Amino acid sequence: MFHRVITLTTDFGTDSPYVAQMKASILAINVEARIVDITHAIPAQQISQGVAALRDTIFYFPPDTIHVAVVDPGVGTNRPILLAQFGSQWVIAPDNGLIGGLAIHEPPRTVYSISNQDLWRQPLSNTFHGRDIMAPVAAHLSGGVPHENVGPKTTNYKTPDWPMTERQGASLLGEVVWIDHFGNLITNISRNDCTTFNHENCTICCRNQEWTGIVATYGVRPIGSRVALFGSNNHLELAISCGNAARALGIKLGDTVTLSPR
Amino acid sequence: MFHRVITLTTDFGTDSPYVAQMKASILAINVEARIVDITHAIPAQQISQGVAALRDTIFYFPPDTIHVAVVDPGVGTNRPILLAQFGSQWVIAPDNGLIGGLAIHEPPRTVYSISNQDLWRQPLSNTFHGRDIMAPVAAHLSGGVPHENVGPKTTNYKTPDWPMTERQGASLLGEVVWIDHFGNLITNISRNDCTTFNHENCTICCRNQEWTGIVATYGVRPIGSRVALFGSNNHLELAISCGNAARALGIKLGDTVTLSPR
Amino acid sequence: MFHRVITLTTDFGTDSPYVAQMKASILAINVEARIVDITHAIPAQQISQGVAALRDTIFYFPPDTIHVAVVDPGVGTNRPILLAQFGSQWVIAPDNGLIGGLAIHEPPRTVYSISNQDLWRQPLSNTFHGRDIMAPVAAHLSGGVPHENVGPKTTNYKTPDWPMTERQGASLLGEVVWIDHFGNLITNISRNDCTTFNHENCTICCRNQEWTGIVATYGVRPIGSRVALFGSNNHLELAISCGNAARALGIKLGDTVTLSPR
Repeated sequence: MFHRVITLTTDFGTDSPYVAQMKASILAINVEARIVDITHAIPAQQISQGVAALRDTIFYFPPDTIHVAVVDPGVGTNRPILLAQFGSQWVIAPDNGLIGGLAIHEPPRTVYSISNQDLWRQPLSNTFHGRDIMAPVAAHLSGGVPHENVGPKTTNYKTPDWPMTERQGASLLGEVVWIDHFGNLITNISRNDCTTFNHENCTICCRNQEWTGIVATYGVRPIGSRVALFGSNNHLELAISCGNAARALGIKLGDTVTLSPR
Repeated sequence: MFHRVITLTTDFGTDSPYVAQMKASILAINVEARIVDITHAIPAQQISQGVAALRDTIFYFPPDTIHVAVVDPGVGTNRPILLAQFGSQWVIAPDNGLIGGLAIHEPPRTVYSISNQDLWRQPLSNTFHGRDIMAPVAAHLSGGVPHENVGPKTTNYKTPDWPMTERQGASLLGEVVWIDHFGNLITNISRNDCTTFNHENCTICCRNQEWTGIVATYGVRPIGSRVALFGSNNHLELAISCGNAARALGIKLGDTVTLSPR
Repeated sequence: MFHRVITLTTDFGTDSPYVAQMKASILAINVEARIVDITHAIPAQQISQGVAALRDTIFYFPPDTIHVAVVDPGVGTNRPILLAQFGSQWVIAPDNGLIGGLAIHEPPRTVYSISNQDLWRQPLSNTFHGRDIMAPVAAHLSGGVPHENVGPKTTNYKTPDWPMTERQGASLLGEVVWIDHFGNLITNISRNDCTTFNHENCTICCRNQEWTGIVATYGVRPIGSRVALFGSNNHLELAISCGNAARALGIKLGDTVTLSPR
């Protein structure tokens, strides 16, 4: 099996030389690896945001892409680092809830605990396992090292400690998990979660602001009006057509979203 | 004909996973495509900014580079998506004035209306044609699919609805179309527009601020003084040597610029 | 010798089309070059920041990587452009203190003055030598042009005019040279500078704020407490565990850092 593409997702900030150090670490092992940035704007140590970014993005990549996710408040402590297979995609991340968060959406086919130090960078730092362990392991895999060489299989991984969607009477409660550049509010409520609701006869509430009905596309409502729809990744999205909903309505990451029949 | 390089220009913001989804969509079809970001900081839905970024950049690329430009307020409505050839370069964009804006600087050699759904991603979303139509079509072209396979030729494309330069008596009126990281004010007035002006004996005005004469380079005036010159892309640029003109003088995108003889 | 990887470090801002123009200029000469961004967020014209970013990053890259560094307040004046070899790495930069700053950490093995105009872009602009000279020269080298073809060897290069670490009695004085995305304060004091200090019995002061002792990793102190350690690049770093030290303590780039025995 020959992996070509390696993606990077971190909370380092786009302009951080740390990102370049990870790329250097990959290219020093496999100069043919194709590296793609998913995002480096995960808010510092917000693992749930890392889950949202990866969940919506990894399945568009070619089979056997390796996704390295470094949101790692526990760096330098004894937490394991995992390699997990989701469908045809592979994810490398510290065991801090990220793998567990992805597993809620799609159970992993295999999980390995990364322990084979022959695949790590030497000398190993205490503060940057992204560069010294995760990137080199991804590079070796991309060059043809078999997955089972990274370490033993495991079935243990940390489950997330942040809130998921939940039913409350006739309503479904979720939250805003991403605010994009346009100010659209992306929630953790998926299209599948909504099958029991009538899309034309429902109400979505967030911070006392209301959206009525779920429509197919922005264009069906006049510019400036509120639009709720399933975004390009099949999650419920609250927007103002050609406007910035987050700014106009004062809604923030983590705000509760309630979907109810009308 | 074998395209290697694909560029991306969007209003998604640099850190958006949407950009990575477009790259995934390309690599899933042609893992050998070389992808370069032009910018993802086009202000939301400002097509004229997209024109400015592309006009100044595409002709430095190798022949047959494909430039995908997603500034797309009309996504999900019935607007066509076009493939247009400018010199040796190819541009894919929704028909919203971007192709028409580029055509003012250089008439397109050919324009195709993209309609061949065999080249699109399935399932197609209503909200993200950048990922589902434009990126896959670019990827197929980069892998050798002939241009004429994307759909029929057309001579129709929308003309821009934003202001261009215009003569007013002895003066020429333009506007600030880009403010770079240094605070330099890049205008839509080209070197060719200025052939009838004496570069040593002219005045440039913007928001009651004045620049005298057009010089060859920043270094000819002392640090802190005002400098007007033709920037690296042959458009008139207003600056403060080693300073931030936009911040110091309170000038904004879209402000009128008047060039007059002295 | 066959160079594959070219890196870019500039003060253009991440979203600048200027960066894409440099990449275009490289790919037009060698479409096989692998381009990696180190950072484009060097504060405008702050050469010392460019030194810090490169010094910490270049040695992770594969041998014979070419690093192009465009922080160039003197563009258009007569300053030379240099190609310098540091260990197995190559750096191209205007002679404005950047090469001299790197030379303090590791003396260059060879330095060439770039003068062979056959390797430059034509027409040459007055304002963008990054695109028209530095990027094309890097591209030619990456394609196999021998180093000595760029111009004559030289032993002259400008020494930096910004402050270095210095001894003051029993103390060592340095400064904050980088603040990362997490608000960690990276100093110009290296691990080697500190060999005469007892790591458990020392004090670090910055803006009247105090850190006690240098520890091995963030995790050894409770969340929210102050941590001083040698970062992933062997330079002293002042932090608040899982917090933002720069914001919480009001510390800025260039602030003095004093390391003293207790």
